[in-house]
Amino acid sequence: MPIKLAGNLTSRGNSPAGDKCPIDRAMQVVGSRSTMLLMREAYYGTTRFDTFAARSGMTEAVTAKRLRELVEAGLLSRQPYREPGQRTRHEYVLTESGRDLLPAVIALGQWGNKHLPREGSPWLSHDECDARVQVELRCANGHVTDVDHLVLTS
Amino acid sequence: MPIKLAGNLTSRGNSPAGDKCPIDRAMQVVGSRSTMLLMREAYYGTTRFDTFAARSGMTEAVTAKRLRELVEAGLLSRQPYREPGQRTRHEYVLTESGRDLLPAVIALGQWGNKHLPREGSPWLSHDECDARVQVELRCANGHVTDVDHLVLTS
Repeated sequence: MPIKLAGNLTSRGNSPAGDKCPIDRAMQVVGSRSTMLLMREAYYGTTRFDTFAARSGMTEAVTAKRLRELVEAGLLSRQPYREPGQRTRHEYVLTESGRDLLPAVIALGQWGNKHLPREGSPWLSHDECDARVQVELRCANGHVTDVDHLVLTS
Repeated sequence: MPIKLAGNLTSRGNSPAGDKCPIDRAMQVVGSRSTMLLMREAYYGTTRFDTFAARSGMTEAVTAKRLRELVEAGLLSRQPYREPGQRTRHEYVLTESGRDLLPAVIALGQWGNKHLPREGSPWLSHDECDARVQVELRCANGHVTDVDHLVLTS
């Protein structure tokens, strides 16, 4: 049943809730500040436990717990590596699922930059043309859309 | 200092942390499942307390606390309304800041739909052309980008 957003909610049955709602499912997995900060570090290229802990500013216990959750949820993969003369250690590498979360993380940052502004906020650009990168809502025909022009079908 | 993402993190100083990081600032405000579920309801068109509580499935106490936080953070505006013969009540209306969070919420849903799939997940389309709507990372020159082609300048 299609419904127009910001519109006739009361005329339809129920909003998709619990397991039916993909936003809800996503927030159950990545809906904590510490999780998002670890994903941010993974996008920067961090793979090692000590670097995740140091750069996120979280305790080792919290870092370990969150990394384990991200591995269980399939956003990071735990892989062995070994440097000469050292014992085998593990690093945390972005999976396809982890890479696919990037637009959500950047969209949060974009909102934070605009609505909670601070001096010295970073920005993203495209490596090939230097143009600023943004998150957009766009339909398959190329139209940029907003909440007033979205229809939800469930 | 520009740095390439998923690249030479260790060669630069620090990742933007705490107040410098807009992702961190955003997650401090909207980084809970209950907050995102209330914003979802606001996008559906919900404005009244009872509807927020019923549709999000949260207790009245949690709903009241989260709505108050969203008003304080500027994503919702609390406005008086009055129906004939009733006392004045308040409703919660999306602000520009609240509307601007939509791409982040939809990006989370898009990730949830793909990586935590369930039957019966809803989808979004553009009301004018019916084409499916997605969140994209795109530069000002129109190129779709991914994590391997982003440069961060801070």
